Amino acid sequence: MEKELLLMLPGPVPIPERVRLAMARQAINHRSPEFGAVYADCVRCLAPTFGTANDLVIISGSGTAGMEAAVANVGRGKKIACLSNGKFGERLYDISKRYGDATRLSSDWGTPLPLDDLGASLEAGAEVVTLVHNETSAGIRNPAQEVGKLCRKHDALFIMDGVTSIGGDVVEADRWGVDIAIVGSQKCLAAPAGLAAVSVSQRAQERFVADCPYYLDLAAYIKNAKKDPMETPYTPAVPLFLALREAGLLIEEEGIEHRVMRHQRLAQAVRAAAAAWNLPLFPSIDALHGYSNTVTAIRMPEETTDPDFRGLVKKLGIVIAGGQDHLKGKIFRIGHMGAVGAPEVLATLGAIQAAMHRLGCDCADDGVAAAAAHLA
Amino acid sequence: MEKELLLMLPGPVPIPERVRLAMARQAINHRSPEFGAVYADCVRCLAPTFGTANDLVIISGSGTAGMEAAVANVGRGKKIACLSNGKFGERLYDISKRYGDATRLSSDWGTPLPLDDLGASLEAGAEVVTLVHNETSAGIRNPAQEVGKLCRKHDALFIMDGVTSIGGDVVEADRWGVDIAIVGSQKCLAAPAGLAAVSVSQRAQERFVADCPYYLDLAAYIKNAKKDPMETPYTPAVPLFLALREAGLLIEEEGIEHRVMRHQRLAQAVRAAAAAWNLPLFPSIDALHGYSNTVTAIRMPEETTDPDFRGLVKKLGIVIAGGQDHLKGKIFRIGHMGAVGAPEVLATLGAIQAAMHRLGCDCADDGVAAAAAHLA
Repeated sequence: MEKELLLMLPGPVPIPERVRLAMARQAINHRSPEFGAVYADCVRCLAPTFGTANDLVIISGSGTAGMEAAVANVGRGKKIACLSNGKFGERLYDISKRYGDATRLSSDWGTPLPLDDLGASLEAGAEVVTLVHNETSAGIRNPAQEVGKLCRKHDALFIMDGVTSIGGDVVEADRWGVDIAIVGSQKCLAAPAGLAAVSVSQRAQERFVADCPYYLDLAAYIKNAKKDPMETPYTPAVPLFLALREAGLLIEEEGIEHRVMRHQRLAQAVRAAAAAWNLPLFPSIDALHGYSNTVTAIRMPEETTDPDFRGLVKKLGIVIAGGQDHLKGKIFRIGHMGAVGAPEVLATLGAIQAAMHRLGCDCADDGVAAAAAHLA
Repeated sequence: MEKELLLMLPGPVPIPERVRLAMARQAINHRSPEFGAVYADCVRCLAPTFGTANDLVIISGSGTAGMEAAVANVGRGKKIACLSNGKFGERLYDISKRYGDATRLSSDWGTPLPLDDLGASLEAGAEVVTLVHNETSAGIRNPAQEVGKLCRKHDALFIMDGVTSIGGDVVEADRWGVDIAIVGSQKCLAAPAGLAAVSVSQRAQERFVADCPYYLDLAAYIKNAKKDPMETPYTPAVPLFLALREAGLLIEEEGIEHRVMRHQRLAQAVRAAAAAWNLPLFPSIDALHGYSNTVTAIRMPEETTDPDFRGLVKKLGIVIAGGQDHLKGKIFRIGHMGAVGAPEVLATLGAIQAAMHRLGCDCADDGVAAAAAHLA
């Protein structure tokens, strides 16, 4: 095999060696003080990334399993308002339809959400609201704090997909009134894929429904997490917990404030490069909506195609993402989340700039230099 | 940390180094030919352990997630007959109650199942039958082939929990008429915990219900597995797939027939030791039910208690299992599944025999020698 590719995707992301090697050890009993301590370390290190003092549990499954657990445990038979301006907002709506009376409150991908419609939905009795905080499909950061305020005003439960913001951008779940927040392990936490961490407010727990999937029964997870030693209700994916603990310790060592600032700096650098190249950012933002600090979505240069463009970048050993669904060929996306820093971002921008030159795209200015100025 | 404990449990089990180290590599994109090839290798190596040519998919979740996927995709609103003579039979019944009109057909843990009642249930219109092939809680092997015959006769779907038999004992899913079979990664396959592989017959696929949990939607798994490259519908736990591939290659290298014979030989050795010690095996078997070949459940020596007995064994670096629920303190269980061989079994029996001597238990004869005679 040639050298491993540098994944500058909105997940999966490069995993620090210390985190990967944590998985190589021999199996341990998952009903033991040793495993309980691993789980406890994960929770202690993750709580500040959520900004929560609520119960926090970890499901062996993808972020989607975490999202479904949230909806299934409080949404069965309820009126659910699903905000959507991208692929993952759609997914939350798809999940919500399986459980409750779901209404989609949508805008075009990457454009501000219809918050007025949300107010009307809540007036009309919506009991649960779903929001994707950071919509990677479109590179937009949605206004979680404002949605939280509206939910609180109408006593609705607020489910927030923080899959690609928690651990990389400012998240204040408790202060914003988030009842259930979810993060995936393979994004800003820079751990391997396969775990979803879910925080659950007391208010949400009081409204748990009885009829939820067995494997996604949050009450069972919370009950088992209160045992001494801490446990999961079903066999956990032990190596992934060992890796997540190590990733969590790295976050604790860096400090969540510094970590968020690092992500913001990387995002500013990438945006500066796009500006230098005269390539518009994809999202339309306003006073409440912002550009994502963990993934940047940029319009594809007009002179080329997605396969040619990303193919050349990949030849230089770097994988960036294209657009999904109807945005295929229209945008490209650079993930800058997790453990990456200036070297990875500069390499990526250098490869993109070289590809653009090679393909005869008109780069107005030196994007690498513009980025470097932000990273210094 | 002191030396790692030798886990002689009915899962988790010791994982070969080659399997563990497969997880240490850098993240790879899960939508890529490289990951698709990993998934394809897993399926190719696992199919012979199931004895199936049916579609086979892998869910990132525990064996319980696999069991729930089976029940949820064909059981919603259906009459489900749940055979149960142990803890996992009970769990399948608990899961089935969440989806359909479930009836428990039970006998005392570790005693023959009421197959006459099953016949009556099928006559009365049961459409789905659940069975735990190898019930680790009681060390009994249940008659999958006979259950399959009854299901076929009445055109009912047959769900078989093969979590602790597939990869270690004879399983002929297609020949026995199993519609959905499930295995967990951390048992006889000797891979880390966190994946469930599920085989699904065409007949079962034709009876899929629309309303199943999103994360456990087998139709979506099957559809994505048919893509080129193979994919999973949601982000897979990549390191666990890498490990499972390596574990699968080890099975392929050993050959499933040889692997099953190895498990049978280890089981015979442990049973010979129990006989030498005059300790009765826990299960009551008959012409159709047998002793498990992957875990042996033995009555606790009368002269001691579970904490004293297993505590002394653990001081010698070996973990064996106690009884669960109402069998706590009444039995102990030795797992002999996965990659273990004569050295691990002899060490375990030696530690048990030493503990019995130390605790003043009456060991009639030398169990270690009796086992060694079978292992030679």
